[in-house]
Amino acid sequence: MRRPHHGGNLTWAAKFAGCPVSALVDFSASINPLGPPESAITAIQQGLSSLTHYPDPDYYQLRSILGQWHQLHPDWILPGNGSAELLTWASWDLSIQELTFLITPAFGDYWRALKTFSTRVQPCPLDLTLTTWKLELNSALAEPIGKRALDLKSVGLLLNNPHNPTGKLWTREEILPYVERFGLVVVDEAFMDFIPPQQQQSLISVIEDYPNLIILRSLTKFYSLPGLRLGYAIAHPQRLQRWQQWRDPWPVNLLAQQAAVAIIEDHTFQQLTWDWLPATRAKLFEGLAALPTLLPLPGAANFLLVHTNQSSSQLQEKLLKNHHIVIRDCISFPELGDRFFRVAVRTQTDNQRLVDALAKLVLSP
Amino acid sequence: MRRPHHGGNLTWAAKFAGCPVSALVDFSASINPLGPPESAITAIQQGLSSLTHYPDPDYYQLRSILGQWHQLHPDWILPGNGSAELLTWASWDLSIQELTFLITPAFGDYWRALKTFSTRVQPCPLDLTLTTWKLELNSALAEPIGKRALDLKSVGLLLNNPHNPTGKLWTREEILPYVERFGLVVVDEAFMDFIPPQQQQSLISVIEDYPNLIILRSLTKFYSLPGLRLGYAIAHPQRLQRWQQWRDPWPVNLLAQQAAVAIIEDHTFQQLTWDWLPATRAKLFEGLAALPTLLPLPGAANFLLVHTNQSSSQLQEKLLKNHHIVIRDCISFPELGDRFFRVAVRTQTDNQRLVDALAKLVLSP
Repeated sequence: MRRPHHGGNLTWAAKFAGCPVSALVDFSASINPLGPPESAITAIQQGLSSLTHYPDPDYYQLRSILGQWHQLHPDWILPGNGSAELLTWASWDLSIQELTFLITPAFGDYWRALKTFSTRVQPCPLDLTLTTWKLELNSALAEPIGKRALDLKSVGLLLNNPHNPTGKLWTREEILPYVERFGLVVVDEAFMDFIPPQQQQSLISVIEDYPNLIILRSLTKFYSLPGLRLGYAIAHPQRLQRWQQWRDPWPVNLLAQQAAVAIIEDHTFQQLTWDWLPATRAKLFEGLAALPTLLPLPGAANFLLVHTNQSSSQLQEKLLKNHHIVIRDCISFPELGDRFFRVAVRTQTDNQRLVDALAKLVLSP
Repeated sequence: MRRPHHGGNLTWAAKFAGCPVSALVDFSASINPLGPPESAITAIQQGLSSLTHYPDPDYYQLRSILGQWHQLHPDWILPGNGSAELLTWASWDLSIQELTFLITPAFGDYWRALKTFSTRVQPCPLDLTLTTWKLELNSALAEPIGKRALDLKSVGLLLNNPHNPTGKLWTREEILPYVERFGLVVVDEAFMDFIPPQQQQSLISVIEDYPNLIILRSLTKFYSLPGLRLGYAIAHPQRLQRWQQWRDPWPVNLLAQQAAVAIIEDHTFQQLTWDWLPATRAKLFEGLAALPTLLPLPGAANFLLVHTNQSSSQLQEKLLKNHHIVIRDCISFPELGDRFFRVAVRTQTDNQRLVDALAKLVLSP
């Protein structure tokens, strides 16, 4: 069995560790450890009796509830089979631009989607200097913009906010000047909902002002349902209607649809998560920072990027074999390579188990 | 709410009938009324605890079990989010051909998928003469082939077998000469598994001889799980690897995957369906044939196409309003228009209810 290039392949990890998948502690996928909420499981169970029907191809109920949540007309919302499915269609739109600027390091699936429609890509690297670690969007974009004698109205831009894998959160004000100048901007906000509402920097509130803006959202990371597949795009209705005509009529399965309707209104679970994350992440950060040879980097999302003086793939293998712990190596991010790894913030107990295991490995490698 | 162009929109039907969806008797979607099998529901319930994990992006277990079933190496199989998702990628391959021959009347989603990648389409109409009703593939293709001075190796062909909406089953021997001659042939076998094994005419047994052949299969019609979304393509591994790189890494949700593994081995349910269909379809056929102004046409699948002297959309509306029965009008098939409708074969009780309701409408319209 080949080593997977992307995260989320626990079948491989279990085989490598010589244990069942259920015995693994998974820090590699950035999934909320508090979920899935009971409301989701109940909704799915209630949906079982409806599986003999096709989903409503208009997804009207789902779009309406998402619309109420975001205070948008349902026509501005298109559900998809995970945000990865919608990224495929967004990348088709990007491919029509003369060139697409991609903030790097970039989530591996961006490269896949951009390649599907042969998009011309200009990588725009963030400054990864460990001593400063500011990750300014302006610095990443200044040189590529300056170097090209291009009309920016024919250029696309793809980034995620908060950024994966660094966890950097850009403010609305940092991104909006590029939405004003570029032909098409795709902002993947897959992890935005982990940030307490007052600190969120989503562009949803300004979407109606920008027909050249696409926002991608996921419902499966915050609500711990990646196996169910559920995301949505927010963009101008004409754009979404075009995507709808390209793709098959029933991309979202009925159980995902039922779960979505329930979890969006599960304010208890949402508050629980916002109460849990900041303090737990801070404690994990401190635990990692206290270890020699490891340098965790500040991040706003539910994961931390960590610099290591050792090979991260060797660390990964030892954690798997000796502790059944899965971390995410960063080999698939060429800018990071073998000196970084990424870990999800999990429960206090799990996080301590990770810190203890890492302590053993870095103190006596 | 607009009238849907395709079938499967029960939300619209319930609104029109003024009743909840659960009160409708749905003859419009051609779904096995005996399912879903208990084995599927149990597998889904067991899968609920795994929803916090991503599906295995290799879908190795699922491909292996499908491979065992069809006596093929797993690399010849690619699962998808319903066969409709796979049709999108098949149509991309068709779009590379100079021209694609499409047997008509054609399932509406074929037009959608062919349009996505701007495929040039040559409709090849079946002979719909009611008195003969032979539906020869040779007759449909003879004229378009003769008319064009094209190298057939640069031409694609898309058909389904058994054909929807007529229910016509072509033999392997009728189709294979075209696989030999055409550049690319896509055979959608979405309803093939309804036919008792000895009478099936699937091309799966010869797939390894034809790198220019794509077979699409569905698991949600026979097993009554259209809400779950699950289909698969059978084709040369190189082709499937290409599709895999185009699309997102996790198209099949984890519950669909779990259900598939269970139902493929549910031989009891399969036998039950094969025992039920032929006699029940024959009885429905007789009931419809006994009514004046209606002419059901012989078909091999789990649905029947019916010619009517009245407007089928008016019949549809009356059945909905007066009897909460949903039939499939054929407006979306321009070759059939308002003089045909399609009904699924359901249980004996439901079928009788349909025949009784139609009797009232055609005897005193």
